[in-house]
Amino acid sequence: MGSDAVMPLPLNVYEYESAARLALPRLIYEMAAGGAEDEVTLRENRAAFDRWRFLPCMWRGIAAPQLRTTVLGQEISLPILLGPVSTQRLLHPEGELASARAARRAGTIFTLGACASTSIEDLAPEVGSWWFQLYLFPDRAIARDLVQRATAAGASAIVVTIDSPVLGRHEANLRNGFTALPQDIRFANIDPAALAVHDPRQSWKDLEWLADCTSLPIVLKGILDPHDARLAFSLGAKAIVVSNHGGRQLDSAVASLDALPAIVEAVADRGEILIDSGFRRGADILKALALGARAVLLGRAFLWGLAAGGEEGVFQVLELLRAEIVRSLLLSGRADVAEVDRSLVVPAGLPSLGSSTAHN
Amino acid sequence: MGSDAVMPLPLNVYEYESAARLALPRLIYEMAAGGAEDEVTLRENRAAFDRWRFLPCMWRGIAAPQLRTTVLGQEISLPILLGPVSTQRLLHPEGELASARAARRAGTIFTLGACASTSIEDLAPEVGSWWFQLYLFPDRAIARDLVQRATAAGASAIVVTIDSPVLGRHEANLRNGFTALPQDIRFANIDPAALAVHDPRQSWKDLEWLADCTSLPIVLKGILDPHDARLAFSLGAKAIVVSNHGGRQLDSAVASLDALPAIVEAVADRGEILIDSGFRRGADILKALALGARAVLLGRAFLWGLAAGGEEGVFQVLELLRAEIVRSLLLSGRADVAEVDRSLVVPAGLPSLGSSTAHN
Amino acid sequence: MGSDAVMPLPLNVYEYESAARLALPRLIYEMAAGGAEDEVTLRENRAAFDRWRFLPCMWRGIAAPQLRTTVLGQEISLPILLGPVSTQRLLHPEGELASARAARRAGTIFTLGACASTSIEDLAPEVGSWWFQLYLFPDRAIARDLVQRATAAGASAIVVTIDSPVLGRHEANLRNGFTALPQDIRFANIDPAALAVHDPRQSWKDLEWLADCTSLPIVLKGILDPHDARLAFSLGAKAIVVSNHGGRQLDSAVASLDALPAIVEAVADRGEILIDSGFRRGADILKALALGARAVLLGRAFLWGLAAGGEEGVFQVLELLRAEIVRSLLLSGRADVAEVDRSLVVPAGLPSLGSSTAHN
Amino acid sequence: MGSDAVMPLPLNVYEYESAARLALPRLIYEMAAGGAEDEVTLRENRAAFDRWRFLPCMWRGIAAPQLRTTVLGQEISLPILLGPVSTQRLLHPEGELASARAARRAGTIFTLGACASTSIEDLAPEVGSWWFQLYLFPDRAIARDLVQRATAAGASAIVVTIDSPVLGRHEANLRNGFTALPQDIRFANIDPAALAVHDPRQSWKDLEWLADCTSLPIVLKGILDPHDARLAFSLGAKAIVVSNHGGRQLDSAVASLDALPAIVEAVADRGEILIDSGFRRGADILKALALGARAVLLGRAFLWGLAAGGEEGVFQVLELLRAEIVRSLLLSGRADVAEVDRSLVVPAGLPSLGSSTAHN
Repeated sequence: MGSDAVMPLPLNVYEYESAARLALPRLIYEMAAGGAEDEVTLRENRAAFDRWRFLPCMWRGIAAPQLRTTVLGQEISLPILLGPVSTQRLLHPEGELASARAARRAGTIFTLGACASTSIEDLAPEVGSWWFQLYLFPDRAIARDLVQRATAAGASAIVVTIDSPVLGRHEANLRNGFTALPQDIRFANIDPAALAVHDPRQSWKDLEWLADCTSLPIVLKGILDPHDARLAFSLGAKAIVVSNHGGRQLDSAVASLDALPAIVEAVADRGEILIDSGFRRGADILKALALGARAVLLGRAFLWGLAAGGEEGVFQVLELLRAEIVRSLLLSGRADVAEVDRSLVVPAGLPSLGSSTAHN
Repeated sequence: MGSDAVMPLPLNVYEYESAARLALPRLIYEMAAGGAEDEVTLRENRAAFDRWRFLPCMWRGIAAPQLRTTVLGQEISLPILLGPVSTQRLLHPEGELASARAARRAGTIFTLGACASTSIEDLAPEVGSWWFQLYLFPDRAIARDLVQRATAAGASAIVVTIDSPVLGRHEANLRNGFTALPQDIRFANIDPAALAVHDPRQSWKDLEWLADCTSLPIVLKGILDPHDARLAFSLGAKAIVVSNHGGRQLDSAVASLDALPAIVEAVADRGEILIDSGFRRGADILKALALGARAVLLGRAFLWGLAAGGEEGVFQVLELLRAEIVRSLLLSGRADVAEVDRSLVVPAGLPSLGSSTAHN
Repeated sequence: MGSDAVMPLPLNVYEYESAARLALPRLIYEMAAGGAEDEVTLRENRAAFDRWRFLPCMWRGIAAPQLRTTVLGQEISLPILLGPVSTQRLLHPEGELASARAARRAGTIFTLGACASTSIEDLAPEVGSWWFQLYLFPDRAIARDLVQRATAAGASAIVVTIDSPVLGRHEANLRNGFTALPQDIRFANIDPAALAVHDPRQSWKDLEWLADCTSLPIVLKGILDPHDARLAFSLGAKAIVVSNHGGRQLDSAVASLDALPAIVEAVADRGEILIDSGFRRGADILKALALGARAVLLGRAFLWGLAAGGEEGVFQVLELLRAEIVRSLLLSGRADVAEVDRSLVVPAGLPSLGSSTAHN
Repeated sequence: MGSDAVMPLPLNVYEYESAARLALPRLIYEMAAGGAEDEVTLRENRAAFDRWRFLPCMWRGIAAPQLRTTVLGQEISLPILLGPVSTQRLLHPEGELASARAARRAGTIFTLGACASTSIEDLAPEVGSWWFQLYLFPDRAIARDLVQRATAAGASAIVVTIDSPVLGRHEANLRNGFTALPQDIRFANIDPAALAVHDPRQSWKDLEWLADCTSLPIVLKGILDPHDARLAFSLGAKAIVVSNHGGRQLDSAVASLDALPAIVEAVADRGEILIDSGFRRGADILKALALGARAVLLGRAFLWGLAAGGEEGVFQVLELLRAEIVRSLLLSGRADVAEVDRSLVVPAGLPSLGSSTAHN
């Protein structure tokens, strides 16, 4: 395409993904887009949204739906956060800085990854509200140091990723020979010499240790089993993220959205329930809210904006999703994301039929 | 195709769609055929028919099935009406006039849209029974004026579309750059200077206001939730149309046919239940009647006839559907559309098995 | 293919269909293979078999499974009959004679159609046991005459097709311009001058009239609703054929196999239940027996043999199906078709799980 | 490919299959890969795994999951055995010797087939723990002789294949003209002159006869019906293999995995339950363990390794599956294959919803 050609603005997140695919080297795109093993869970995350349909109400007289909500007491302008993603400079030269600025402009929270390619101290001045994501590195001193630096720099919560005792197997990466970071990209907050990210020995006991390291609220990310959800809140977590890591860890794990109802039933009164994995449309987000989530963490959805257009691309993705949520709320007669509940959705397919339906 | 080539008469509505696709500029065809966002609901409307199978009876001695029925006390020759569609001159130079004449010839009701490209006064002399469809324009004076003109011109009911507080997002239109009417097509009943069609503040209170404007029966179109159906009849509507606007408003909304049974269960004794969205075959119409609808409003199905052949094309589509209904009634042993009930259909798939089926 | 090329013997009925497709003019093939309208029921007839799986038993010590059974007291060497098909000379010059001879060689019953292209009197000397199929022509004198001629010629049952008050709409035939028989093929038993085949006024009262015409047992073909099955036996039928006419009459009608269990539950103790529509494999036939059918009528399956190889082709199809049934009985531990019951099949898909499966 | 080209090591069993397909003559590949008749069961075996999803637990502090288990009291290093496959020299010149050596290196059991292309006496010195598979040849003296030779040579169990009273019909083999072994491959343990492999008269009485022939534990392979499972243990079998012979015998038989829960419910306390048919991933194996199997027998999965790389290929397949199981256990919070139970899996699809989900 000649330099004067003007790309029309993508109309939805899928088109941002197409633009990202064109903008990125193939092995980076496939690294970001792909999942573990047979990618069963990757696909299932999307399929799960299709198991629900909206049952909209009409004529509710809603001039301007309210999207503002809070997570952990912090106000956000829409029920979407930017979730943790490692080394975002792989996708755009400005990496996490671009994403964080876009989150600030859109009025929501940015999460800085433990394996970010931007240092905590470089990021802090450029971001609004932000959370810090932590892996429990085998060398716990590294983890403690990171938490303390993040706290000092103004993070307002610590998100611990608990679904990664080892790294999931991404066969596309192996096929592409993508097994280490390129030379010019590095973990900006960790000494590469000391680096071992995953620790299979991590356990619920570490939560106590972590609570001693910080007074920030702790969010546990990667929960699918209701028992774990109960454990999390019993042991002091303030929020959980229902997540299968975007299908990148245990393949054939249940879709996040499919896991949500049982978790909501188990712990809805115990703390805040967030969710990620597979969200691409405002409608997806409303389905998660309807099933009991408080807000959604984006991963790939904002990465495609980042790769396609840096800060502006991430901001556009957020505003596009905001507009989709607004429109869907208007069209379904809900005035406020806070009043979105199970009455908004029905299972797709043959309606369950009452007693009047027997005919023989 | 050379001018002497004779196109064989289309054999079914799908073939009318193919003919329309050839006859129309691409962006007009895609505007008419498409739906909102990912077109989940557009497809689901069709898929819903496939969830039901007929259980025909034999040897009922039916020489000529009876298709005549009434809606709001008006007799129609078959359980099909032409539903409201805006600016039909986009599809054929004669636009609404052609459709209305075809409805008269076929012995059914035509619905003139608020955003028609033919004026109420031009239409009235050319049509038989007709209804007038209304959007509650933000400037209610426009709405009142339209209702009064339609009443004066002989409309026999007012159909209020209540699922459109804002316009659904048709991404194909945006991609095609189709965001305004061509120069030669205009809304014939509304001053374009005053024009804002959608009003998100509309609500059930407007029904009272509207009832004060007219003594015509009011039909509310766009209901999917049984609570709304109850509200509609409680507040004085005489009929409702179960509809998701042909998948053009809230994407991922439940299919009309899937929403029907719960609405029938809630309000079958309260007023007349009509339906639209996705109907292409006589068999589709019989399934809706079996699940409790009184009649079906056509949208795209008659548009394809209009685009392919003007008045004659619309008439052929109606007669084709009439013949399909007649044949299906004969083959399923029903003498009259009035006796089509739940006994005509069973869910598709594995039959539900009685107590004799356990085997371990 | 050169004239010396030897076609390998088809390995299954699908390959006979491929051979027939090569052997027949396209419009004849499509006439025979196709179904009504959207061919929903045509496909559903095949899909229904896929809803069941076998649960075989092992080590039952069965040297030679027994396939012999009876229908209406007549012994047949396998639970398959040749069902009625009109004007078989369209498929092969020897038409019904070839099919009938093959049935005799295979030890089963042939059914001569009312609209056969071979006369009753020509057929009778060449066939073993045979049934005569009747349409209730509007001119009942024609029907009575046919029954009397068939009785005189040695037919052992009268099969009345009751699902055809009018002809289903085969759009492929209309598209192909195939709306009348070719000049050289004619109904051999009916005066073409008097010919109107379908009579929508036919009803259950005609069964009484028919019983007065003949002392032969009467089989009613085309039943899908259990109420009709009850009526049939109450009014004196000796057997019924659960059938949707191979998907050629009411499109979207329930698959024959899906309709079978409710009919078996309603009338298994009242008379013999036969079935047709969609059978292509020995496994299909065993599924029908497992769900309560006594035997299966073939339609297209034997036509493909007829088109591909005349009498020998039909015989090969029967022997192929016999071998498939024998093998499947051996592999499932059933010694006799008479002992095939519901214990042989389970619904496909996720097994129903006992009380031990709950986990939260 | 030039001789210097280095094939990257296959990343999963599917890639081993691709390598095998390239390495083998087409008719050998299709013989090994194919199934009976329409291959419904062949596909269903794979589809059955997709009906279940994992519900992983997090933060269980598992440094090194334990894969060691026992079958019939013999320790194996992972819950996988090499199942019986005939004439493995068709796939690689070293045939059974290669497979057996790989099993020994991997620390598991090899099963020598009755129709092996390697003699019992040649095999015994090269293998670790091994079982001997038996067909009940019509000439029982052959069967007894084989059992006695296998016992003398050190086999530790006799696996009797009971699902093969006749051979399933592999139409691909017939199409390929592959109806006999090539000249250079022969059954190494049976006199070809005396050869008739299948005996439809075999029955449960033969188990008594067999128990008289040997003091080795007897494993019955090919059980799908819970009644047969009860019979097996009642009559003295020590283990059963839930199996449909990889879809090679009765087509349309239930998938092994679908048959497993009812069998586990019936006989879990009576003996050991093994399974085969369709396993390609560590995740598949864990699903079977979760549903109650003790270990899995591989068939085609190790054959692809054998064809692609001989002993080393089989070893790589085993180590690849070991690594997949280890990773999946780590990611699902299970420390030991022995603690994998129903809590690890949930049905795929719409979650079952509690009482809070009704909305009308």
